[in-house]
Amino acid sequence: MSTAKVRLYVEHDLAGGASFEATPDQMHYLAGVMRLAPGDGVMLFNGRDGEWRAEITEATRKSCRFAVRHRERGQTDEAGPWLLFAPVKRNGTDLIVEKATELGVGRLQPVTTEYTNTARIKPERLRAIAIEAAEQCGRLTLPEIGGLKPLAAAISELPAGRTLYHMDETGGGRAISEVMAPGAIGALLTGPEGGFSPSELDLLGNLPNSKSISLGSRILRAETAALAALACWQALAGDWR
Amino acid sequence: MSTAKVRLYVEHDLAGGASFEATPDQMHYLAGVMRLAPGDGVMLFNGRDGEWRAEITEATRKSCRFAVRHRERGQTDEAGPWLLFAPVKRNGTDLIVEKATELGVGRLQPVTTEYTNTARIKPERLRAIAIEAAEQCGRLTLPEIGGLKPLAAAISELPAGRTLYHMDETGGGRAISEVMAPGAIGALLTGPEGGFSPSELDLLGNLPNSKSISLGSRILRAETAALAALACWQALAGDWR
Repeated sequence: MSTAKVRLYVEHDLAGGASFEATPDQMHYLAGVMRLAPGDGVMLFNGRDGEWRAEITEATRKSCRFAVRHRERGQTDEAGPWLLFAPVKRNGTDLIVEKATELGVGRLQPVTTEYTNTARIKPERLRAIAIEAAEQCGRLTLPEIGGLKPLAAAISELPAGRTLYHMDETGGGRAISEVMAPGAIGALLTGPEGGFSPSELDLLGNLPNSKSISLGSRILRAETAALAALACWQALAGDWR
Repeated sequence: MSTAKVRLYVEHDLAGGASFEATPDQMHYLAGVMRLAPGDGVMLFNGRDGEWRAEITEATRKSCRFAVRHRERGQTDEAGPWLLFAPVKRNGTDLIVEKATELGVGRLQPVTTEYTNTARIKPERLRAIAIEAAEQCGRLTLPEIGGLKPLAAAISELPAGRTLYHMDETGGGRAISEVMAPGAIGALLTGPEGGFSPSELDLLGNLPNSKSISLGSRILRAETAALAALACWQALAGDWR
């Protein structure tokens, strides 16, 4: 079995001796794009059982099977910060999902706000982007992806004790390096183009566990603010320390 | 003169009473896309004279003129960190230029490394992306954009005293929060997909002013590493403090 260049997320349980069929998309990728053949190795993970080396035992245009061989990494806790974000035009939302997955986000929660322009998201599309990013970056889990919901509802569902850091474009917030520190796990919140409305800023200001952050004087696009905040979280409070 | 929604970079000197023609691209944007008309206001900056309110005095498909009226902001020093980066496939390089401009980069220096796949960049395209990002985010300057050059040459041209922070995927670097601190201005270096070669890591390790940084155990795409490093720089050592 050769060195595995391909790493795939699967739904199946993973254990030595297990054998199962690839999905049609995986089949196309493995046989059509990567030209893998019986005997080639792949790495598999499912978010529960760690990372396993598997062998391709069949690879045709109609069928592709894995035989699970050996566990290479045990499952570890990958609890990352949550990101609550107002969806932006399609490319921006795609970018947030891909990069936030690489940056170790634990849960992606799209929220509608007063100034949100985008009324719909496609959960299956976001999930596919997150899966590809998780496969590429070596995560053992996928981020959870919530359905679109109003900001107030998303806030009310935050677990007790989780600090909500919201990016405030009006300049009222504190420097991120003063506010983020190791300790309780956080949730980050970024608004749409145009920021939060005055009543939303009031709501956020009155929450007991909320901290307002300023990301400097330049006006960042919504997706830039989300990714910058996540990177700073990992550097200051997360697993880059 | 109505409130200005449009902000444009121009080459002309800006001073009260100045009057000049928009470029063909600006003409198309102002008259065709934004439907501005004589009497409408725009904001102009050129990287030297601060930000000025101007009035559109003519707006047809064939000619569009500005009359410069009033200075709204004086020119300020926007010296940001340099970013030396190995170009990645086209979308990745575009993303680096756009987001780095928003994140306050001072100079963008594309470099070729042993594992760089992309042998060409289009400087005019990168400049156009940087201009649009600078217009949008409120900067008073454009980042400088260097021509593609070998890594060793780019390093030899760093101003004396500028610390070079390189993102090391091999896990040998220190945590970014331990290394970046207010003080001398820095240069960040990110490699291509596949990272730096062993001989490049040797070269970097032997430089007197070089610090190796690890961005955690997930494998970040090249553009993600560049933007994460810049965001952390602004938070820890730059103008987000």
